[in-house]
Amino acid sequence: MAREDGLDEFINEALPRFREELFDFLRIPSISARSDRSAQVVEAAEWLAGRMADIGLTAEVIPTDGHPVVLGEWRGAGADAPTVLIYGHYDVQPSDPDDLWTSPAFEPEVRDGRIYARGSADDKGQVYMHLAALETHLKTRGSLPANVVFLVEGEEEVGSVNLTPFVKTHLERLAADAVVVSDSGMFAPGLPSILYSLRGLAYVELRVRAAASDLHSGAYGGAVANPANALAKIVASLHDEAGRVAIAGFYDDVLDVDPSVREGIAGLPFSDDEFRAEVGAPALTGEDGFSTLERLWIRPTCDVCGLLSGYTGEGAKTVLPAEAMAKVSFRLVPDQDPAGIAALFREHVEAHAPSGVTTEVVELHGGRPWRSSVDPKLLAAASRSLAKAFGREPVLQGEGGSIPIVVEFEELLDAPALLLGFSLPGCNMHAPDEWLSVENFEKGILALAYLYDELTV
Amino acid sequence: MAREDGLDEFINEALPRFREELFDFLRIPSISARSDRSAQVVEAAEWLAGRMADIGLTAEVIPTDGHPVVLGEWRGAGADAPTVLIYGHYDVQPSDPDDLWTSPAFEPEVRDGRIYARGSADDKGQVYMHLAALETHLKTRGSLPANVVFLVEGEEEVGSVNLTPFVKTHLERLAADAVVVSDSGMFAPGLPSILYSLRGLAYVELRVRAAASDLHSGAYGGAVANPANALAKIVASLHDEAGRVAIAGFYDDVLDVDPSVREGIAGLPFSDDEFRAEVGAPALTGEDGFSTLERLWIRPTCDVCGLLSGYTGEGAKTVLPAEAMAKVSFRLVPDQDPAGIAALFREHVEAHAPSGVTTEVVELHGGRPWRSSVDPKLLAAASRSLAKAFGREPVLQGEGGSIPIVVEFEELLDAPALLLGFSLPGCNMHAPDEWLSVENFEKGILALAYLYDELTV
Repeated sequence: MAREDGLDEFINEALPRFREELFDFLRIPSISARSDRSAQVVEAAEWLAGRMADIGLTAEVIPTDGHPVVLGEWRGAGADAPTVLIYGHYDVQPSDPDDLWTSPAFEPEVRDGRIYARGSADDKGQVYMHLAALETHLKTRGSLPANVVFLVEGEEEVGSVNLTPFVKTHLERLAADAVVVSDSGMFAPGLPSILYSLRGLAYVELRVRAAASDLHSGAYGGAVANPANALAKIVASLHDEAGRVAIAGFYDDVLDVDPSVREGIAGLPFSDDEFRAEVGAPALTGEDGFSTLERLWIRPTCDVCGLLSGYTGEGAKTVLPAEAMAKVSFRLVPDQDPAGIAALFREHVEAHAPSGVTTEVVELHGGRPWRSSVDPKLLAAASRSLAKAFGREPVLQGEGGSIPIVVEFEELLDAPALLLGFSLPGCNMHAPDEWLSVENFEKGILALAYLYDELTV
Repeated sequence: MAREDGLDEFINEALPRFREELFDFLRIPSISARSDRSAQVVEAAEWLAGRMADIGLTAEVIPTDGHPVVLGEWRGAGADAPTVLIYGHYDVQPSDPDDLWTSPAFEPEVRDGRIYARGSADDKGQVYMHLAALETHLKTRGSLPANVVFLVEGEEEVGSVNLTPFVKTHLERLAADAVVVSDSGMFAPGLPSILYSLRGLAYVELRVRAAASDLHSGAYGGAVANPANALAKIVASLHDEAGRVAIAGFYDDVLDVDPSVREGIAGLPFSDDEFRAEVGAPALTGEDGFSTLERLWIRPTCDVCGLLSGYTGEGAKTVLPAEAMAKVSFRLVPDQDPAGIAALFREHVEAHAPSGVTTEVVELHGGRPWRSSVDPKLLAAASRSLAKAFGREPVLQGEGGSIPIVVEFEELLDAPALLLGFSLPGCNMHAPDEWLSVENFEKGILALAYLYDELTV
């Protein structure tokens, strides 16, 4: 297609500069969780707004109750053209333990075809790729075929608490026909991927109490209930022998999955043996009747994230604990509702608590699951862009984790979301030696540049 | 009996001095667990040896690898007379939290008929009562009807690790016809008691592991085993619905209990409601078919003393833990063997561990259960002494806790043990505001003085 002429050439020529600019961005330690880095978080926001302005967007750093939002806009395509909202985040995870990094977290370095730095994959690298794609259009043609709103937040790593309120108060300005999110990864090297589902989350804390204080396990053991044993009974009752969650009603809202989705998953290049070896587990387990990827992507789960009771130090201390605690997380699939699942859990606990104890369930966190509405035009455009850039048709993949804001965007803006990510498995997101593939950085910019043309074919 | 003439009078007259002397003993903070109190531990040993010498015993402070043993001897009754070994300990528990004491832990004070001080009940007060009883005989008659060996250790509160080796290396010097231990309590005020059983202990740590490191609960949850959930399954499998321990073979070595013992227990003044209110539990539980006191004294138990896995701080952190840990204690009854029970537990864990995890069982501590051989002569003598001093026949009681040295004494010295204790329920042993009843202090000295005559009738 003639319209694409010039994009490849521009990108090829600009790549060394793109990389240098990304390195500048990565050098700013914008750790949102650390209050002593607040100035650096703002510095990263301002750096980003500056780059947006440089390439021809109007750009603003907008304060919130936490870290600011950077909003870039280009509306030159006119009222009849579609509008694309790009979402990403410029904040990063803490870098500790710093001594486990091969090169310092905030001194980007290329080794073996990878850009090593905190934020390279999650998410500064991917945010910068969008910036480079926009620049490519604006510099080669002076325009884009779609209007663009570029929203980059600074609190993704600390729960995005101010983002939904921000979206709600800027609904008109953020109005879009599609939301493009690049904060995920590809299924495998060389295999471009579109994310079609995210699991939701219900996170609860279960507290079990018996006596008013810790007791001597000899003087009282056997006649006074033990809350740790009782908690184990309750937790054990959460699964049946087939690995299914045994809470009444738990699966009631789980939508059927199209057979074609399961066929697609079955066709992905995946080895249980390699996965098992990678995590270092003696064997894989899970719900009967589902493959590993299905267990991770399309099935809900129940996992204990923490246990605490009584004496946990070295050696033997005999104590009958007064209290026991379990943190329990449920990963959810459409259309399970976090509050509804927490309520079912509470009922289950009340029904299964042994006599002699009292129980308390505290809801700590929730996020809704998401499944792509698979807007056919959007999906086809993304597929063509990725295929052209990577030389291979993309695969559809699910994700076991949660990005609650995706559901919010779709509902508040009434626009379908497209999740295109360019990190790779094992990229050490949230860990030392985080990296982004140089090949994905380059081909990703290309794909994102193509996308605007494909969206407006 | 004429032989007792003079004992009562002497004690009545000496009581103010006895109390002052006990206060001097209690003022020495002989906390065996605190290395910065080593000098005070030795000071208490020397104080005790000094008092033994004052009343006419040969006394020695004998070093061990830890705190010293105080050994007093009086062998004036001759080779044909019986020998009584008295056992107690002069070390005490730490006093913290000190701010919860009404009067300072090491400044003894009498309030409402109670002597408040750390060690008043456990065990300095009871050790001193023996000393006063011996003095009473020696001062009123110049002799005792039995030979006496008075062994007082300084490491009871830290596991008595050097005591069995000490007994083994001094077998001839410690040879005795009966061992009298006063480190326990009476069933109720005004109700003198003889302890006929102690539970033993098997203490193990269960470790369950799955992946090599903590994982993201979204990215891996559902396909990789969760060791905390697996541990809950294993712990839940330790009991059946009737509250019995569900480990195969667990009850094989449990000896039948004489119906008269159960009748005796049923006849004791005990209220489930009061007990429940005292511990502050919503209800009492335990093994079906047994009363509360039977559950505590004559039935074995399995209690979790500690649980630890994953994230235990405030709020929600999603993590699939790599490891989970439970500390499990079994209280044992005759003739269960601690090592045998630990082995059965290990087999049970292996049989009940879900797939996808590995397990490890570490044995941390063990102590054998004890049941009085009920030497009829010894029991009758003790009963008469207590009845005379307290004006009421003693009851037989069990004890849910463990004093492993009792079994060792019986076996190593081939002599029956007699457990006579004078503390009362609620006396705050190991807690702030520990106390000993003034009435029990006085009547107890009387009972112990009578005992020598009754033993040699």
